[in-house]
Amino acid sequence: MKLYTSHGPNPRVVDRFLAEKDVRIPTHWVDIMVAENRRDPYLSEVNPAGTIPALQLDDGTHVSDVIAICEYLDERFPDRPLIGRTPEKRALSRMWTRRVDLMVCEPLANGYRFDQGLAIFSNRMRCLPEAAAGLKAVARDGLQWFEAHFEGPWLSGVSFTLADIMLATFVDFGNEIARQPLPLDLRRLQAWLSRVHERLGVTNFR
Amino acid sequence: MKLYTSHGPNPRVVDRFLAEKDVRIPTHWVDIMVAENRRDPYLSEVNPAGTIPALQLDDGTHVSDVIAICEYLDERFPDRPLIGRTPEKRALSRMWTRRVDLMVCEPLANGYRFDQGLAIFSNRMRCLPEAAAGLKAVARDGLQWFEAHFEGPWLSGVSFTLADIMLATFVDFGNEIARQPLPLDLRRLQAWLSRVHERLGVTNFR
Repeated sequence: MKLYTSHGPNPRVVDRFLAEKDVRIPTHWVDIMVAENRRDPYLSEVNPAGTIPALQLDDGTHVSDVIAICEYLDERFPDRPLIGRTPEKRALSRMWTRRVDLMVCEPLANGYRFDQGLAIFSNRMRCLPEAAAGLKAVARDGLQWFEAHFEGPWLSGVSFTLADIMLATFVDFGNEIARQPLPLDLRRLQAWLSRVHERLGVTNFR
Repeated sequence: MKLYTSHGPNPRVVDRFLAEKDVRIPTHWVDIMVAENRRDPYLSEVNPAGTIPALQLDDGTHVSDVIAICEYLDERFPDRPLIGRTPEKRALSRMWTRRVDLMVCEPLANGYRFDQGLAIFSNRMRCLPEAAAGLKAVARDGLQWFEAHFEGPWLSGVSFTLADIMLATFVDFGNEIARQPLPLDLRRLQAWLSRVHERLGVTNFR
């Protein structure tokens, strides 16, 4: 296997997923700052959608989606499961992961791409600057919803899962890069974020 | 198990998934037109996020996310797999499913909610009418991308998967309800949609 990785929250989700599982995979760095991921050979040989990360499997196939990659790694390396040991637990962690994805990660990231990130992203995808403020508000609504419905200790209950890694990584991105800080009055999420950092070891975005 | 279902593309994805697997589950109809899903007891007892569908498992837990539900059903009823028989096949179908989700389903559905659906949805969620036209354009871009990268016979290759069911169901929703028709010049997708309809049996939205 070989992992194509770079800056940004999505590659960092896979880095943290692998670290938590204590699995190491050879990596290939892709320089997204010069759009290496938006031209050949990356587009033709690795991922025609141009996104990072991508995982080359042993049979040469490329899987280029952060959740599909994490699901695959959890199947291939079943020790320390991060999606769940049973169908019922997997169902719950997948539910929480997609809630995180649609309610926070996507609107937060697009709020960034369509505003501070516009100079970088406007040549790479259709950007909607008119939606930036609204998307950031949607992401804040999502965080408030998680605050209100968080039972803990982790999002999916007693087990630490991909849902925690995804939300924490995008919240870190909001705090450090995207100027969408986690509000201080969301105390349960603030305490949860500290627990995630303690567990994973805090690292700043490269 | 019990399936909470209603109008709309997400419940229909699960209906089609079950039909293709030839599995029947008792259902409970939720009247979303009078917002039964946005108040108790649905919110407190089934799904605090207020979305449909939701699946009550045999242990009483509720799984309320369309993809998590389909993953669970594919694990519980492994005949006629619709996500994949091996980790490698599952990785590819999950990649295609999330591409479909983020590139077409989400922007198409939000383009509808923020425009024709505004009267229904403005009391239920934060709506961004200023983003409606742009989101519809993003969904069209996504469809064009699938047209260009479709190898077939199905999205994920030789196997019919959840990715096909999701995309076809949201394209049907665009054609029948959301006034976002699949462009006629996307010939490979038009032919693929006909194949999906032939396989599943065509039904109009209720």
